[in-house]
Amino acid sequence: MNTFGHAFRVTTWGESHGKAVGCIIDGCPAGLEIDEEFIQKEMSRRRPGGEFSSKRKEIDEVEILSGVLDGITLGTPISLLVWNKDVDSKPYEELKTIPRPGHADFSYFAKFGIRDWRGGGRASARETVGRVAAGAIAKLILRKYNIRVFGYAREIGGIRFSVEDPEKAFEIAERSPIRCPDPQKEGEAEERIKMAMSEGDSVGGIVELIAKNVPAGLGEPVFGKISAYFAYALMSIPSVKGFEIGRGFEVAKLKGSENNDPIVLKDGKIRFATNNAGGILGGITNGEDIVMRIAVKPTPSISKKQKSVDYERMEEVEISVKGRHDPCIVPRIVPVAEAMASLVIVDCMLLQGLIPRSFVGRT
Amino acid sequence: MNTFGHAFRVTTWGESHGKAVGCIIDGCPAGLEIDEEFIQKEMSRRRPGGEFSSKRKEIDEVEILSGVLDGITLGTPISLLVWNKDVDSKPYEELKTIPRPGHADFSYFAKFGIRDWRGGGRASARETVGRVAAGAIAKLILRKYNIRVFGYAREIGGIRFSVEDPEKAFEIAERSPIRCPDPQKEGEAEERIKMAMSEGDSVGGIVELIAKNVPAGLGEPVFGKISAYFAYALMSIPSVKGFEIGRGFEVAKLKGSENNDPIVLKDGKIRFATNNAGGILGGITNGEDIVMRIAVKPTPSISKKQKSVDYERMEEVEISVKGRHDPCIVPRIVPVAEAMASLVIVDCMLLQGLIPRSFVGRT
Amino acid sequence: MNTFGHAFRVTTWGESHGKAVGCIIDGCPAGLEIDEEFIQKEMSRRRPGGEFSSKRKEIDEVEILSGVLDGITLGTPISLLVWNKDVDSKPYEELKTIPRPGHADFSYFAKFGIRDWRGGGRASARETVGRVAAGAIAKLILRKYNIRVFGYAREIGGIRFSVEDPEKAFEIAERSPIRCPDPQKEGEAEERIKMAMSEGDSVGGIVELIAKNVPAGLGEPVFGKISAYFAYALMSIPSVKGFEIGRGFEVAKLKGSENNDPIVLKDGKIRFATNNAGGILGGITNGEDIVMRIAVKPTPSISKKQKSVDYERMEEVEISVKGRHDPCIVPRIVPVAEAMASLVIVDCMLLQGLIPRSFVGRT
Amino acid sequence: MNTFGHAFRVTTWGESHGKAVGCIIDGCPAGLEIDEEFIQKEMSRRRPGGEFSSKRKEIDEVEILSGVLDGITLGTPISLLVWNKDVDSKPYEELKTIPRPGHADFSYFAKFGIRDWRGGGRASARETVGRVAAGAIAKLILRKYNIRVFGYAREIGGIRFSVEDPEKAFEIAERSPIRCPDPQKEGEAEERIKMAMSEGDSVGGIVELIAKNVPAGLGEPVFGKISAYFAYALMSIPSVKGFEIGRGFEVAKLKGSENNDPIVLKDGKIRFATNNAGGILGGITNGEDIVMRIAVKPTPSISKKQKSVDYERMEEVEISVKGRHDPCIVPRIVPVAEAMASLVIVDCMLLQGLIPRSFVGRT
Repeated sequence: MNTFGHAFRVTTWGESHGKAVGCIIDGCPAGLEIDEEFIQKEMSRRRPGGEFSSKRKEIDEVEILSGVLDGITLGTPISLLVWNKDVDSKPYEELKTIPRPGHADFSYFAKFGIRDWRGGGRASARETVGRVAAGAIAKLILRKYNIRVFGYAREIGGIRFSVEDPEKAFEIAERSPIRCPDPQKEGEAEERIKMAMSEGDSVGGIVELIAKNVPAGLGEPVFGKISAYFAYALMSIPSVKGFEIGRGFEVAKLKGSENNDPIVLKDGKIRFATNNAGGILGGITNGEDIVMRIAVKPTPSISKKQKSVDYERMEEVEISVKGRHDPCIVPRIVPVAEAMASLVIVDCMLLQGLIPRSFVGRT
Repeated sequence: MNTFGHAFRVTTWGESHGKAVGCIIDGCPAGLEIDEEFIQKEMSRRRPGGEFSSKRKEIDEVEILSGVLDGITLGTPISLLVWNKDVDSKPYEELKTIPRPGHADFSYFAKFGIRDWRGGGRASARETVGRVAAGAIAKLILRKYNIRVFGYAREIGGIRFSVEDPEKAFEIAERSPIRCPDPQKEGEAEERIKMAMSEGDSVGGIVELIAKNVPAGLGEPVFGKISAYFAYALMSIPSVKGFEIGRGFEVAKLKGSENNDPIVLKDGKIRFATNNAGGILGGITNGEDIVMRIAVKPTPSISKKQKSVDYERMEEVEISVKGRHDPCIVPRIVPVAEAMASLVIVDCMLLQGLIPRSFVGRT
Repeated sequence: MNTFGHAFRVTTWGESHGKAVGCIIDGCPAGLEIDEEFIQKEMSRRRPGGEFSSKRKEIDEVEILSGVLDGITLGTPISLLVWNKDVDSKPYEELKTIPRPGHADFSYFAKFGIRDWRGGGRASARETVGRVAAGAIAKLILRKYNIRVFGYAREIGGIRFSVEDPEKAFEIAERSPIRCPDPQKEGEAEERIKMAMSEGDSVGGIVELIAKNVPAGLGEPVFGKISAYFAYALMSIPSVKGFEIGRGFEVAKLKGSENNDPIVLKDGKIRFATNNAGGILGGITNGEDIVMRIAVKPTPSISKKQKSVDYERMEEVEISVKGRHDPCIVPRIVPVAEAMASLVIVDCMLLQGLIPRSFVGRT
Repeated sequence: MNTFGHAFRVTTWGESHGKAVGCIIDGCPAGLEIDEEFIQKEMSRRRPGGEFSSKRKEIDEVEILSGVLDGITLGTPISLLVWNKDVDSKPYEELKTIPRPGHADFSYFAKFGIRDWRGGGRASARETVGRVAAGAIAKLILRKYNIRVFGYAREIGGIRFSVEDPEKAFEIAERSPIRCPDPQKEGEAEERIKMAMSEGDSVGGIVELIAKNVPAGLGEPVFGKISAYFAYALMSIPSVKGFEIGRGFEVAKLKGSENNDPIVLKDGKIRFATNNAGGILGGITNGEDIVMRIAVKPTPSISKKQKSVDYERMEEVEISVKGRHDPCIVPRIVPVAEAMASLVIVDCMLLQGLIPRSFVGRT
């Protein structure tokens, strides 16, 4: 339920305005050097900041409580914790019994008969802190195998960005406040976001994710397809409403002869001439780059007037959501999506026996 | 790996040209009346037939080997088996060491170092026999709660079909050989498929799925989101390359104020004025119709010449895939997608405690 | 529920008097040669026969329906099936609504509100057919690593058997109709069983299990202890009421200085001077022989008069259980226990990365 | 691996001398009132103290970091944390490369190639803090159903205690520093422990556990037997080497007619005249008291000289384990065993649909 993964298992916990958020990573191989600076850097990539995002300011310092001795993993559960410091629940008080449109408030209440009204509670994007921290450790493992997972905004507020070389696109995007990989369109996209902000509104977009150097043979037949697993992982991120791999929804318009990737010899190895499949055939990796995209909805928290119902008084009301919100969540979803994809790959490599239970010693 | 579900668990087994295919359903409540005729009808909906599909003719008669006594489930595993009768492996013999483009041949070989060359083996669409049989039993359960799951082609070969009322669309589509819900466009779509056939090619499309009367509160927080679970379930179907829920990829172009579904009172109940969310908020159902679409790639088996590599001789070759193949798999994917979605809903209802462990007796 | 294992997963299905029983093995490495004769031999070891066991005569021929091509595993699910041929449900008809003391009849009925009254249904020892078949495949894998799992009766009807060298004990026991490893006591034990038979009664006993050459490092910390896993596996066998490892219940009477196994160097390797721990410390194997014992209750099916209640008429009755029953189930439990222990070891070796996903090819 | 349970899932984390230990409880129903005082009381029952136990003094104050709002559970993960305060790793420094006999040091090192030498690390009894905290919450749920789980020492240092009425036995034992339910034998047992202490040695024993008012029908067929699940749960506790249910190992000496519990009518309900089965038939509860016993080995940490090997220098050495250790762990295992048994029962009740997902509201 709150656990992700089979061999590399991450359990996240914590409410947005509770004492802390965190996660436990179970199944991390022993003998891994934990680069705390790198983890912290990944946390910063997720953190709000700049003019295009929420004003909540958190240092998000990760405390490692277990599983690591002298900077080396022990093979035991790694418990990571981040205290919630800059919390202000007041703006939410007037919505204690009024579910916000586009939010999980109503469905959580329908499920549990009770909900944490403070800042979205468990359904808040704050929950992704634990994902990014765990994903950072997964990336440390992938680094050993020269596997890179990265992403950028592919579309924001209806403006599509051009990408030729994904690796360069990533570099450019990392320097952009909105993770835009296309300098030609960046200004226009920022304008679109500002416009929405000024209207008390928000915009959505599309994130593109690439995984390079993933070995062929990952994923399990039938229900363990790595494509299904990626879909599951990425659709579990708040605000994601669609997932596609390779050419994705475009395949609906292609013929078999256009869509099939010809199999060829390159440098004496079996490879694919094109990559419409996005690196996955029959749910198992084929050695080509994995290419995925997810659709991100516009932030539901908007100050524009919206209709809702007070479920205590069973009465229709008009509300305006206050608090500090991102007018566009797309840039901040990029590191979360990278984290989830990294978790999937590490998990499948462990299941395939490509990562040992320990990087040291005699086992 | 080959098991799907948490409380209602389905394990499928079998290769396309092996002795049989089948599945085990574990966790089906006791005391359910098994309507064998209905199961058989669902099997027929999946079966090839007509001019637009593979010529493999199988009666696909389901044998129930366990878990049912006098037509009533016992609460123990239900073992279902379908013998593979009309099997002809000869056309595949010349491709024993040559992976077919667009197929799982190469990736299975990369994973296991061995592959069943006969008719796609485990990666064949034949595997879905077990899913449809299990899905039929799931539908028998859902029927008790007045929940309906149905689908139709929403797009074939680039031709988009209009749909106003999904229930009517389904009825129309069920009478169409290509499961087209739009009589205006049916002829054109059939033409498109015939054209591809005549060129030894194939076309793709989009399937739309609806679930009506699903109670609010299904799905689990964070990693157990029912949207992620649906994505996982539907992306596990062979040939599916994309998944979306509600407005899906369109949300990228919407503003928050356009995408948020206003919350209103209808007949004294909390409901949503629109359904852009597709019935799911924060990964938990909100009581509205669940609406999903999947992208289906053009059948990879085409008789047109294609490039590949003989991995025994490590030599590039040109091949033409023979055998009996569907020029468009979209219509046959509809019942499979319905089955998978039904399994998800039953599973989540069991997890939520909405379905008892037994429909009879004293428990 | 009806599935055992994490990486090497076995799902059994089938009722005693249904059409068939069987199992699916998911996660078996590819490239394993399937020695069908060996599987059949293991089945025969489990089969009733001889004067000390049930008169049900079944050839128990295992049909392999999937997962194997030309005698080699494909890495896909292996479906094994055994038809139920020699079935006679008549003796059970008069007990349709009367639970037999010592049997699962009442508790199944309490759970499901319905029960298969024919020969114990799912709770019958016939279910272990699938375990032994799957265990045979596990043994084929262990054989590659020179790991041997074997057992014998350690006590029957209150008569304790002497064992010095477990391997010799096993050889002797395999030639004994009651799997007795102690020729001095064999006659006495047989007498005890015959006596019980003549009284329409039954006797219990203890089975001892040994696993040799198990590598150190198997098992997972805390909840994944291999000792707990063995306990779970062996307690899942019908009629088993106790489990112990190493010195087991005797440790309650020992001092730390007596029970701790001194750590020494043998041939330059770290070993243990004694093996009170039974090969497991902290839930993880230490490289010494694994030694376990299970307590087996006397067969509950006895022809002696017993009290029960007809739950239809809610009336106390006296019954005598007819049908064909073993007066002592201990000898037949030996191969089942070996199978379960073998499954545990293979599973833990896969989890530890000591068994590859494929024994052939390029992975 | 470090997670226990299916529907009510507990993940523990933390090393003995790390910063903290704790657990996450996932799947706890919403709307449960959290009685923090009760949790703290359970923690105290586990805590060392008195002349017969380790001198490590920890207040073991449980901090609730998530999942609870205004004292009521939210249905989201409950994160519990206890800081490690009174930690002194110095005595362990000289054993950094020398595994202690009877401890997990060697097997952890064999598994991971690295081990936490500080106070046993993950394999320390300190890990059970999280179990007891989670078990306390499970007990709060069971309380609603009038189900009680309790235990006491049944044997210590070879001295067997008499028990007539388990509930009275528990009351007496709770007032005894060694959890002895038999005032006649208490002095003798204490003498035995003191004697061992004075020799730098330790003693083992047996714990008996009772669960009252458990409804019939818990447990799943075949591999999900609640007896197997209890065995798994209790064998996962450090130092436990044997498990039995009902008459346990004694059944080996009984006849079927002696061991079968007659089924009778009591107050118009189907009950059992005796309870040799210990409340479980066919792995499913039958409504009678559940009765279990576990064998606890003598504490392996003894100051008496013992043989071991320095694995750095590969040299035999003689060691004496210093630090603060219990001469008999039996009394402190009682609350841990109760906790594990409570977790099993709550989990099975959730699986059986007997506990709702929420105790409040509209679901």
